[in-house]
Amino acid sequence: MAYIVDLRSDTVTKPTESMKHAMVNSAVGDDVFGEDPTVNALESKVANLLGKQAALFVPSGTMANLIAIMVHCNKRGSEAIVGNLAHIYKYEQGGAAHVAGVLLSTVQNKPDGTFDLQEVENRIRGSDIHEPITSMVAIENTHNVCGGKVLPLQWIDELSELCKRHSIPLHMDGARLLNASAYLEVPAERIVRGCDSVALCFSKGLSAPVGSAIVGSCHFIQQARRMRKMLGGGMRQSGVLAAAAIVALDEIAPKLALDHKRAQRLGKGRLQDTGRRGRNREGDLLQRQDDPPDSAHRDIRQRPLARHYEDHLRVQGARGRASADQLVHTNTRHESWSCMFSSYHSTSIYLYVPLVCDLQIKFVLDRDRKLLFF
Amino acid sequence: MAYIVDLRSDTVTKPTESMKHAMVNSAVGDDVFGEDPTVNALESKVANLLGKQAALFVPSGTMANLIAIMVHCNKRGSEAIVGNLAHIYKYEQGGAAHVAGVLLSTVQNKPDGTFDLQEVENRIRGSDIHEPITSMVAIENTHNVCGGKVLPLQWIDELSELCKRHSIPLHMDGARLLNASAYLEVPAERIVRGCDSVALCFSKGLSAPVGSAIVGSCHFIQQARRMRKMLGGGMRQSGVLAAAAIVALDEIAPKLALDHKRAQRLGKGRLQDTGRRGRNREGDLLQRQDDPPDSAHRDIRQRPLARHYEDHLRVQGARGRASADQLVHTNTRHESWSCMFSSYHSTSIYLYVPLVCDLQIKFVLDRDRKLLFF
Amino acid sequence: MAYIVDLRSDTVTKPTESMKHAMVNSAVGDDVFGEDPTVNALESKVANLLGKQAALFVPSGTMANLIAIMVHCNKRGSEAIVGNLAHIYKYEQGGAAHVAGVLLSTVQNKPDGTFDLQEVENRIRGSDIHEPITSMVAIENTHNVCGGKVLPLQWIDELSELCKRHSIPLHMDGARLLNASAYLEVPAERIVRGCDSVALCFSKGLSAPVGSAIVGSCHFIQQARRMRKMLGGGMRQSGVLAAAAIVALDEIAPKLALDHKRAQRLGKGRLQDTGRRGRNREGDLLQRQDDPPDSAHRDIRQRPLARHYEDHLRVQGARGRASADQLVHTNTRHESWSCMFSSYHSTSIYLYVPLVCDLQIKFVLDRDRKLLFF
Amino acid sequence: MAYIVDLRSDTVTKPTESMKHAMVNSAVGDDVFGEDPTVNALESKVANLLGKQAALFVPSGTMANLIAIMVHCNKRGSEAIVGNLAHIYKYEQGGAAHVAGVLLSTVQNKPDGTFDLQEVENRIRGSDIHEPITSMVAIENTHNVCGGKVLPLQWIDELSELCKRHSIPLHMDGARLLNASAYLEVPAERIVRGCDSVALCFSKGLSAPVGSAIVGSCHFIQQARRMRKMLGGGMRQSGVLAAAAIVALDEIAPKLALDHKRAQRLGKGRLQDTGRRGRNREGDLLQRQDDPPDSAHRDIRQRPLARHYEDHLRVQGARGRASADQLVHTNTRHESWSCMFSSYHSTSIYLYVPLVCDLQIKFVLDRDRKLLFF
Repeated sequence: MAYIVDLRSDTVTKPTESMKHAMVNSAVGDDVFGEDPTVNALESKVANLLGKQAALFVPSGTMANLIAIMVHCNKRGSEAIVGNLAHIYKYEQGGAAHVAGVLLSTVQNKPDGTFDLQEVENRIRGSDIHEPITSMVAIENTHNVCGGKVLPLQWIDELSELCKRHSIPLHMDGARLLNASAYLEVPAERIVRGCDSVALCFSKGLSAPVGSAIVGSCHFIQQARRMRKMLGGGMRQSGVLAAAAIVALDEIAPKLALDHKRAQRLGKGRLQDTGRRGRNREGDLLQRQDDPPDSAHRDIRQRPLARHYEDHLRVQGARGRASADQLVHTNTRHESWSCMFSSYHSTSIYLYVPLVCDLQIKFVLDRDRKLLFF
Repeated sequence: MAYIVDLRSDTVTKPTESMKHAMVNSAVGDDVFGEDPTVNALESKVANLLGKQAALFVPSGTMANLIAIMVHCNKRGSEAIVGNLAHIYKYEQGGAAHVAGVLLSTVQNKPDGTFDLQEVENRIRGSDIHEPITSMVAIENTHNVCGGKVLPLQWIDELSELCKRHSIPLHMDGARLLNASAYLEVPAERIVRGCDSVALCFSKGLSAPVGSAIVGSCHFIQQARRMRKMLGGGMRQSGVLAAAAIVALDEIAPKLALDHKRAQRLGKGRLQDTGRRGRNREGDLLQRQDDPPDSAHRDIRQRPLARHYEDHLRVQGARGRASADQLVHTNTRHESWSCMFSSYHSTSIYLYVPLVCDLQIKFVLDRDRKLLFF
Repeated sequence: MAYIVDLRSDTVTKPTESMKHAMVNSAVGDDVFGEDPTVNALESKVANLLGKQAALFVPSGTMANLIAIMVHCNKRGSEAIVGNLAHIYKYEQGGAAHVAGVLLSTVQNKPDGTFDLQEVENRIRGSDIHEPITSMVAIENTHNVCGGKVLPLQWIDELSELCKRHSIPLHMDGARLLNASAYLEVPAERIVRGCDSVALCFSKGLSAPVGSAIVGSCHFIQQARRMRKMLGGGMRQSGVLAAAAIVALDEIAPKLALDHKRAQRLGKGRLQDTGRRGRNREGDLLQRQDDPPDSAHRDIRQRPLARHYEDHLRVQGARGRASADQLVHTNTRHESWSCMFSSYHSTSIYLYVPLVCDLQIKFVLDRDRKLLFF
Repeated sequence: MAYIVDLRSDTVTKPTESMKHAMVNSAVGDDVFGEDPTVNALESKVANLLGKQAALFVPSGTMANLIAIMVHCNKRGSEAIVGNLAHIYKYEQGGAAHVAGVLLSTVQNKPDGTFDLQEVENRIRGSDIHEPITSMVAIENTHNVCGGKVLPLQWIDELSELCKRHSIPLHMDGARLLNASAYLEVPAERIVRGCDSVALCFSKGLSAPVGSAIVGSCHFIQQARRMRKMLGGGMRQSGVLAAAAIVALDEIAPKLALDHKRAQRLGKGRLQDTGRRGRNREGDLLQRQDDPPDSAHRDIRQRPLARHYEDHLRVQGARGRASADQLVHTNTRHESWSCMFSSYHSTSIYLYVPLVCDLQIKFVLDRDRKLLFF
């Protein structure tokens, strides 16, 4: 039997049975009144996990980042320094500018997701009234567009030092921070030690259906709560979502290392499979008689997501990113079989894969780079 | 046994068993990719219910209203005309101005939630460059701050005519629109016939845990989808929430009329009980021996929500609003016994209020206006 | 000979000879660098005049008000309380919301330009996250739309007390503050004693061609300077404008009392002339044979400004404010013959219609309320 | 005798006698009502000069650019593509983001002020809701931070083609467009042929005291007029400023070629003089006995502008740009000779720089990089 392994994004992960159980069996209340015990528990748990004073549950990573920008950049005419490949800059519709009124000042991301610290220092503005006020630096870990790269600890620490010297808050878009933690075998708390705020997503590789957290000092979170309300992110019995997020932290996070291994195997497999780029190497494949490539391919095309898929492939391909060893923030959720190889791993591959490895299922891209599978 | 009847707000309702079942048994997908079948089903259902082309699921009513403002008021220097007691103006933190950059021009709400149409017409600005561009009129139905009042159909229709004459979109904050529909015994579709967009909440008297919808034309919703993404309201497997909202529409909405009856009985009961203002009329009460007022009161105070509750009562009292016959979605306003009857429509209700009524359980406020119950 | 007395607005005043002389004979420099000695002199002079620490020269009263809003309302989700007939609310295109992201919360202006202090106190928000942060109260003196009314000193002082109690800055849109000072025979400094910032215009009844000042503490002005730069109000050799403003303060301001007298005479004259409202009472008029009403009227129509003029009258009429006995804050600068009857309204107060009277020039409104003159 | 040659910026130019004469002898009116004949004349003149339909007089180049951004980027979630060394990005305090809510997406400027067209094309966003809407491209000509470089005509034309293909408006920050025109010996109209809007400053090398123009189609200017009013840039008898701007176009613009020549001489002189970096080469200087370097230097220090001047040098130095052969930030770029010669073109110039050149007066920097002069 063929499983569709959706490799477009780890955002497509689905809740596990354990999450579902928690969602309907946890106590809930009106979180706008601060009375949802499950949300409160999640917020405490996350704050503790990251070694910060407080956390706030929000509907999305985009909102978590937006709120961080709104709180840190609290002077009119503020700017935030971000990488030119940062999600905040590329994929959040310019909300920093439109909603928060904050200029994004981009420094060039290196292939490993970092950027030059001297360049950051040069960017920091003085007090000249012609210039915006540099009010925040934001980094992304793991770095999505750079191929899920894990930021080097030392670099983060040095950047943090630099920011402290200039009294500029450092924010981490840690949508996939726990992947970085698993990869580095370093507690998340240590990674974000020098950060003033962190965004963390439960709905990506951690499999929870909905939600992110923004984490920081009590004072920061107090203001963040107001921002969340203004943006319309205040939810009511959101304990139903927080319950799944708690399970995500308890049960899925520990499995990320395994996911990374699988992703790596898959990545290597893929390299092998696609030695001739964009060509179908039939010899490498074990075709299933009852599910031949063509029909499978047609199936995909008939699914509404197929169009998105192909669009995504085309876009990703155009970006020419990802090498075989860029396997970090991926995941292969075995409960849900909906996993992602994000940018992951080699140009030819943005496929749909998991079981792949365990079941010896392999894939192949046809010459139009459409995915066939078995 | 004593049940706590939480009269602060209908936002405190909790999901029913049926909702919980749906939440964990409905198909989900990544709604940012438009692939969550349950969200799609809910959006179709709501659009159909309100006789509009399309709908969009959002985390909150505040975001639904904010998005409507952002889409309708799409020219720089726009204003929206709203009642001075509208939720949009009073309780959404000025997001219209801060996030959407839109001036709110308030006209005085009458006690029934309407406002003077001539006044609206006077407010509509011309093309003078000193003046903002009147880009939207918003009404609220039922009207929260006016005591849950149902707007008269004819008034809505006349306002709609006026707006059409001036080519100004009409938005309805229909957070509790289905209460209005139940009260008027008129389909929701008919009520919003003249409206260009409608916000509808599932997480208030309809008992769903989280979520609202914004409804309008396809073109409107297309833009609304972009705004939702920018605000950070794009969620992933939000089918888990939409599933509960579908149950809310199917199973709770039909019971709203019954809730209204119960609320009315309760309201009358309270009126009777509280003939002497702010004083405990012991004679009116059937005290339960095993749960005397004092201990019950202590219980409330010990609960974290008690403080909020009392604050709310105090605030409401200070506003001096609400008359005895304002019983619709909440509010059994005596002169000062102002509590929101919120939970009345919801599972909580089925647990609580019915018992209250059927068992001849009555309330009393002690002389400090703290609620005692039996 | 017939003089055209432009009664639309005191903004149409033109620079006097003395101003022209100053404009070309004053030292100038680059004010963005803070090096224009004449601008610096003006700013010192105005700060001193109003008893505040510092002042900033800006291109317009609208920018002065906008800057005040931007500086005082420096928290996200702020609101400013203003009268519902305030220039800030009615005639600044909603810039407070669109540019500054600030909600304007309007309280009803009384006919004398004040509003109810208890109502202001009720409006001040608490710390609930549903609500904006009340960050400013703004008043207008003299009050344009209310007919050029001078705010009672005691009321301002009481409002100032109220604001101080709540730690909310009080701003005065004093576009025509010096008219109030002349009318009350009280130094401007005394009038604004309780205000944290004041906007003052030189280009209205004071006859200077361009410019306003925003006045407040050093800290306020420091921030205001940044805001001015961001808005594009930083000008270079603006000493050419400041020079005229200095003359306005030195030479025109002392004549305001005289202007008021003339306006009053004119107002009475008009009252007399137009005893039958909206009708031409020929008998009251001294018609000039060589310039009969009809031809004069035609002349106006032929001038490009005539259309504006009539539009203005018509608009005013539509508002039900332009009755013959409403003669407000106009002026007729005798040097320039450009005067205004703006809203025409009321108490005959501050119009500047001077020589008109001395030269026995009278007006008459025809039955369509078009102004004829001799 | 020693003349102070202020090399900080061409914004320090002062009005000529001819301008002063025009300022006090031109007819003026209330420009907010569109009635200032001199402003109207200037706007027609500038529109005609640039071959566009209409123009609008504004207080500054910053406001001209801001208005262009506000008008072109009229969809929520818009971005504008600009060079990373553009004035709009570096020196306008992030107003694009804070005031206009527009994301600035920066592409790397080459040393000649251009940027890679393929890079621009790559930057243009599709319709994905994660991404902002690319609504404008802006270029700067001459390019200030790149050393006053003149953009190659062909590059502008190719960029214009690209923009048209994608239906994206092209804006030129032509603060010093007439310098480019003089340098290329090509009419300004030709240079901006492919641009949808142009900002032009009168208060820089053209010597007028205050003001800029924004130029484009009638429809564009109609909207720009509203934006100017909202920002507080609507001025009254601004004909006093427009009169000087007209003189600037008539009398100073034709002399720009001469200024360039002088600048070239000066630049070569400087290059020659400062062969030994940062050292005073006494031998190159003709010292005046009665005004030795030291005393002259003291004089500078005593002038209020001296502090700014040195601050400026120091700031520049911090940026690593103020080496001895980079005299002040004014650029005497020998490559383009269309540079900021600050005061070079203007009366000040006619007083100062020409003398410098004609009299063989040279500069020298002392070892502290303070400018000495003779």
